[in-house]
Amino acid sequence: MFKTITVPKRTIMTPGPVEVNPKVLQVMSNSILGQYDPVFLDIMNEVKELIKQPFGTKNEQAFAIDGSSRSGIEAAMIAILEKGDKVLIPAFGRFAYLLAEIAGRCGAEVVLLEKSWESPFAQQDIIEKVKEVKPKLVAMVHGETANGQIQDLDEIGAYCQANDVLLLVDMVATFAGVELKVDEWGVDIAIAGSQKCLSVPAGMSLVTFNKRVEKLIKERYQLELGLSKDIRNERFIQSNYLDLSQLMNYWNEERINHHTEATTLVYGVHEGLRLLLEEGLENVHRRHLLNNQAIVAGVKAMGLEIFGAPDTKMPTVTPVIIPDGVDALAVPRLLLEQFGVEIAGSFGELNGKIWRIGNMGYSSRHENVLAVLGALESVLIYYGADIQVGKAVKAALDVYL
Amino acid sequence: MFKTITVPKRTIMTPGPVEVNPKVLQVMSNSILGQYDPVFLDIMNEVKELIKQPFGTKNEQAFAIDGSSRSGIEAAMIAILEKGDKVLIPAFGRFAYLLAEIAGRCGAEVVLLEKSWESPFAQQDIIEKVKEVKPKLVAMVHGETANGQIQDLDEIGAYCQANDVLLLVDMVATFAGVELKVDEWGVDIAIAGSQKCLSVPAGMSLVTFNKRVEKLIKERYQLELGLSKDIRNERFIQSNYLDLSQLMNYWNEERINHHTEATTLVYGVHEGLRLLLEEGLENVHRRHLLNNQAIVAGVKAMGLEIFGAPDTKMPTVTPVIIPDGVDALAVPRLLLEQFGVEIAGSFGELNGKIWRIGNMGYSSRHENVLAVLGALESVLIYYGADIQVGKAVKAALDVYL
Repeated sequence: MFKTITVPKRTIMTPGPVEVNPKVLQVMSNSILGQYDPVFLDIMNEVKELIKQPFGTKNEQAFAIDGSSRSGIEAAMIAILEKGDKVLIPAFGRFAYLLAEIAGRCGAEVVLLEKSWESPFAQQDIIEKVKEVKPKLVAMVHGETANGQIQDLDEIGAYCQANDVLLLVDMVATFAGVELKVDEWGVDIAIAGSQKCLSVPAGMSLVTFNKRVEKLIKERYQLELGLSKDIRNERFIQSNYLDLSQLMNYWNEERINHHTEATTLVYGVHEGLRLLLEEGLENVHRRHLLNNQAIVAGVKAMGLEIFGAPDTKMPTVTPVIIPDGVDALAVPRLLLEQFGVEIAGSFGELNGKIWRIGNMGYSSRHENVLAVLGALESVLIYYGADIQVGKAVKAALDVYL
Repeated sequence: MFKTITVPKRTIMTPGPVEVNPKVLQVMSNSILGQYDPVFLDIMNEVKELIKQPFGTKNEQAFAIDGSSRSGIEAAMIAILEKGDKVLIPAFGRFAYLLAEIAGRCGAEVVLLEKSWESPFAQQDIIEKVKEVKPKLVAMVHGETANGQIQDLDEIGAYCQANDVLLLVDMVATFAGVELKVDEWGVDIAIAGSQKCLSVPAGMSLVTFNKRVEKLIKERYQLELGLSKDIRNERFIQSNYLDLSQLMNYWNEERINHHTEATTLVYGVHEGLRLLLEEGLENVHRRHLLNNQAIVAGVKAMGLEIFGAPDTKMPTVTPVIIPDGVDALAVPRLLLEQFGVEIAGSFGELNGKIWRIGNMGYSSRHENVLAVLGALESVLIYYGADIQVGKAVKAALDVYL
């Protein structure tokens, strides 16, 4: 017979999932409401409005999807892409390949534009490729958590808007940590998640899209059998669960039954977004920038190197090059087991080459930054790494004080 | 500026989502753990074991999917069905058509075997149709929430096991409310959800499958690009998010990164399942049967009729035929607004013809049964319906005392 779980206290400094604001957990412990309870519908309507602000959009369509961030990414991709459609995917990190994976699985023709993971693209390079390939969709990542680089989007967006190309952007790792301007940049559809800078438990994805996308998915609308046998569509979206056209009708006033909404996560997302606006988005972004500065200063003061171009580094992730002779897995393990501090490794070609220190949402606090720097230094000392001792925490304090 | 949500107290007597056990909400308010934190991995491993018992299975494979029940149903369907595969779907209610919808969207050839929604199939009728159609898969619903009828499965399962046909069963509305025997009945893959008799918030689906399914999905395994460019498969599953072959590798010891697990819902599912076993599955089933008896007695004592064949009525849902001259929508609305009691309408051909009273999980308690009967009687009196007055609650008490 298993016992009720016991959860140890952790300082989570990974690029997600991050620590959840205790106020969010408190709100999530409210009792359940039925999914058509008018009180719950009001909460859903407020969530729709709240989502728009960190995205920087006045889009009519903004809602949540019951699944982790990648459920939203897949929903967005398959809503736009039909078999044989051409999609251009500029890749400067791991998560672009997730976009390619999803596109491939829905039968799209994928054109990858690849570069080294150390920096993002010059926007003009992508625009040139768009001119050459003439895709229906450009799908890309704003902030690549795997390597900590961030991509400018405004010129790409402007080109896509002017040339009948759609632009989909994965903003999972920047939403609520970095200023986003979905409308101004010309992004047609953007996706975020609950478990990073929003500081809500994983399990919910957020999406917003403009009239161009709305028109397209309305053309593909197919209501499920069992509600109606008459609303069939030859261009139906290949997933029923992740069908944005049905989800839109569920979140909008039509309230057409689809899934059973994840009540508790909706409560959490509502409170997470509310707390964000209460703090003020500008203050939130400033806090992330300051803590990023302290992390970078601390890491460098230890004599460690940071992966990638400094000018385009995301403030929400710091990729630290693993020093020679140190076991890539042993360090995070000891950090977690002895200090209760969690950092992350990476993926693909960076697996075993960098550690990633997150700086996201509720985890982005002075005490967490100081804890991770102090603990990392101690662990590196313990394993005999060749580092500068006694400097990291002071460097961070110098940023703060 | 929106305020922190205020959640009114409700007596939820719908067939899901149902009231969440306060102990589950308490456990869900624990702080987050990283998805590869050893403590969290232990919790996931326990969840795998806990899931098996209400399903009545010793399958090695049993885990959760981050999404509502239908995400698990879709994951199961598309794991088995490839384009052009034949699937037989016996339909005696609304949710069979969801299976048909999903199968159609993944390019399968769907053969529907339809009957009136008042009772389930004689098993031999399905077996005859299997002989005729020779499908790869029979996909069906165990308990149809929309009309409250339950289907026997043992003979169908035995036939499928002996004849190289796979059997998929949606057990969303019966899991943890009715005794399930996945192994004994010969069910290859079964799906349940968190938000019904398990009394955990919606947002998580549970799945278990046997070696026959495991073999098939291993043949279709494709690891996502970004983790490896080498593990490609011509028979790839069409969704990346709902890819059971990858999910299996994430939940098993391989721990291949897929999505970010919904920590808080895993906590909730762990506690929900644990409480179930603590009460004892037999006691849980008996409690549902007793409360069902009280609901049925109360409804009949009012002079109302129950939809469908009595012998095959699910104990977890009571479909009440809406009496002539009563507004189908006004009654549930007044129940909710004035009494804080929620019941449900239905779907498709039963929309506007029946109300559904749920009897599931933590909502399946004496006080809830008495509350819904008393309130329903009062509302029907208020609207001038022709019912027997003063008898419903007494009839239920006669069952209990």
